[in-house]
Amino acid sequence: MKRVWIRELAEKKEQEVLLKGWIYKMKSFGKFAFVFLRDKTGIVQLVVEDEELIKELKLEMAVTIEGTVFKNERAPEGVEIRVRTMEILGKTYYELLPFSINQREINAALETQLDHRTIGLRRPDKRAVFKIQGEIVEAFRTYLRGYGFSEIHTPKIVASGTEGGSELFTVNYFETRAFLAQSPQFYKQMMVGAGFESVFEVGHAYRAELHNTWRHLNEYVSLDVEMGFIEDENDLMDLEEGFMRFLFQHLNNTCSRELEMFGIVLPEIPKIPRIPLGEVQRILLEEYDKKSPIGNIDAEGEILFSKYVKEKYQSDFVFLTKYPAAKRPMYAMPDDELIGMTKSFDLIYKGLEITTGGQRIHDYEMLKQNIIKFGANPDDFDFYLESFKYGMPPHGGFAIGLERITMKILDLENIRESTLFPRDLNRIVP
Amino acid sequence: MKRVWIRELAEKKEQEVLLKGWIYKMKSFGKFAFVFLRDKTGIVQLVVEDEELIKELKLEMAVTIEGTVFKNERAPEGVEIRVRTMEILGKTYYELLPFSINQREINAALETQLDHRTIGLRRPDKRAVFKIQGEIVEAFRTYLRGYGFSEIHTPKIVASGTEGGSELFTVNYFETRAFLAQSPQFYKQMMVGAGFESVFEVGHAYRAELHNTWRHLNEYVSLDVEMGFIEDENDLMDLEEGFMRFLFQHLNNTCSRELEMFGIVLPEIPKIPRIPLGEVQRILLEEYDKKSPIGNIDAEGEILFSKYVKEKYQSDFVFLTKYPAAKRPMYAMPDDELIGMTKSFDLIYKGLEITTGGQRIHDYEMLKQNIIKFGANPDDFDFYLESFKYGMPPHGGFAIGLERITMKILDLENIRESTLFPRDLNRIVP
Repeated sequence: MKRVWIRELAEKKEQEVLLKGWIYKMKSFGKFAFVFLRDKTGIVQLVVEDEELIKELKLEMAVTIEGTVFKNERAPEGVEIRVRTMEILGKTYYELLPFSINQREINAALETQLDHRTIGLRRPDKRAVFKIQGEIVEAFRTYLRGYGFSEIHTPKIVASGTEGGSELFTVNYFETRAFLAQSPQFYKQMMVGAGFESVFEVGHAYRAELHNTWRHLNEYVSLDVEMGFIEDENDLMDLEEGFMRFLFQHLNNTCSRELEMFGIVLPEIPKIPRIPLGEVQRILLEEYDKKSPIGNIDAEGEILFSKYVKEKYQSDFVFLTKYPAAKRPMYAMPDDELIGMTKSFDLIYKGLEITTGGQRIHDYEMLKQNIIKFGANPDDFDFYLESFKYGMPPHGGFAIGLERITMKILDLENIRESTLFPRDLNRIVP
Repeated sequence: MKRVWIRELAEKKEQEVLLKGWIYKMKSFGKFAFVFLRDKTGIVQLVVEDEELIKELKLEMAVTIEGTVFKNERAPEGVEIRVRTMEILGKTYYELLPFSINQREINAALETQLDHRTIGLRRPDKRAVFKIQGEIVEAFRTYLRGYGFSEIHTPKIVASGTEGGSELFTVNYFETRAFLAQSPQFYKQMMVGAGFESVFEVGHAYRAELHNTWRHLNEYVSLDVEMGFIEDENDLMDLEEGFMRFLFQHLNNTCSRELEMFGIVLPEIPKIPRIPLGEVQRILLEEYDKKSPIGNIDAEGEILFSKYVKEKYQSDFVFLTKYPAAKRPMYAMPDDELIGMTKSFDLIYKGLEITTGGQRIHDYEMLKQNIIKFGANPDDFDFYLESFKYGMPPHGGFAIGLERITMKILDLENIRESTLFPRDLNRIVP
């Protein structure tokens, strides 16, 4: 017999089925028991009448069963299974579960959950986060491939940092010292110049940042985009705005059950406002008496300004544009109109920055001069600069932190909840 | 005007078009010139009649042009463009290209090509390798998603190696020492147990191997699969065999031009033979007088045996099965029938191993005992072993090296040719 998913059972009434999964819950009445079986698609109630077998069963055992599907309006999925045979496939070796998997509330601190990550993920709601995360990545690729972007895989072991030498993890690479890439920034630009024109990468990025906060990770997955032959940074914002619309549609189509678990209704996305940073700072001051740091806004500013935009434009998203050169990397393209500013942007979603992007400098001499202006030595960036000698088209891009956008879409409180195995200042296990 | 791809020009005769790309070749006749423009989709002949402009043009400049499409049977794509306006978007700053991009032969050693990787990739044939590589990854994901597999992203910074401590790169992780993951082996198994049941990952893997050969990289992309609730290793070989068929079909559909560039015709895939290693060794000895090392065959053996299989079964693929436990990792499931052997396999394609896989031990006690038998301390694998206490279903998987399968499909001579930026004993730049 072919295995059936639990989610398909409602259409199999009166039929014999073969199911596989884990024992999620049990109510034993001696001679018979209600056993709840969980597979990756759902949970179903089994009726087991074998007294000897019932004694052997323990929560979370892996089993396979054969039985008949009967209608039962009060059971999950509207059916229950009368079990004919049950076989234990994976035994258990525990005294006590580290925390409960089958209760509404999880009676453990986040750190404890992360210590026993593979147990916590047996909860359907914890696993649902990663179903949604998987579909975010899938939407990202599908959207960009549709526009003719090429997927690339660039090295994570690199010889120099993209933005100076700070916050880099060092790797002992045979006789020399190397670093873990902070981002594929240089490589994705180089690939534009190499003739791929428009590229994307889904890959790990590493930041040796010393702060342990609810929104930082030291290893994360970056969704990176770089696009050649652009007019200016508005092409990039158009692309990303289109992606966000595509993404929400895709999640509604593929993850409606999971979104429901979290009580999330994804908002319609109107035209996303694009507001220069200077203007944003002025509004924050005038409307909320909120002062901002030079050339940026802080976390509180992001929240306040999102509120403002929501009220004024009915948008949960807002692009902040034209950041000052001093606050952007050396490769940021200067703005034509506003002296000292760059053709760059951040995308804020519900009060949190989820993207940084912008047009890059594509002229070799201009880039070299800018590197010097930033106090760095162009020789240290030889391999990167070389690409610019041979005809680099106007280009730019952006990057989205996967765990961060997952967290924000689901309104989670900590970025570790949207990371299978988070790496932070104190954690490299499991 | 909206930009048009060069590949689409044949359908745009007599029309005005906007093109963008690089100057690939020039033949100047003073008052006019034939200029060949290259974009990511192809090459087209332009007729430029502006004398001043012609003088400014240099190979590999990035330009945008507007002009009219005319039929020209002798030109590439069967058309040429009479240029009305041309604008230089990206200037050049070189005296001499490091090697020629527009000649049939590339007049540079592989090492030189890799030193100037972004220039070499401007050659359509070099870039085609990565178009095909991208579609291999896409086929991998599409196939597995079709079977309900979940995509995962597991950490590459880890606290211990998967197979003892050798060949690991160390990372300085704040106050402690960590390693770069050799494979997602432990994590993908843990995710099966965590309820994802069947998972795949496309991610980097790291091997600090000290040999510099044509088929080894120190950083590579691993296509990893792990499948829960299997019957035995035949389920895994069925899955992989189906994937290979799906892959070749997908490449024929999406990369016919690129395959043609390399003169590759992908073979039909018949039922792939599955032959126990002992039998393979016996055949090698009897048919070719070829001795094999204990518990394996060597590179020459792989080539000879592939020849044998091709003649006898008309198959370019062969599964070698039932490797001895001593030659497989501690988590390999022992075979039921052949004492000392495991439920494992390698897949050989045209004389080169492209996959290693097998069923894993899923019982906690059995795995713990096996770790001890291998001379390791179970405490060192605590975070991995814990998952096995809570009901682990029978499972197994395999991994395919992305660069290696790309190389083999295209009959390339060196794995560095199918790696954008290879990392080896001597190279971390560019």
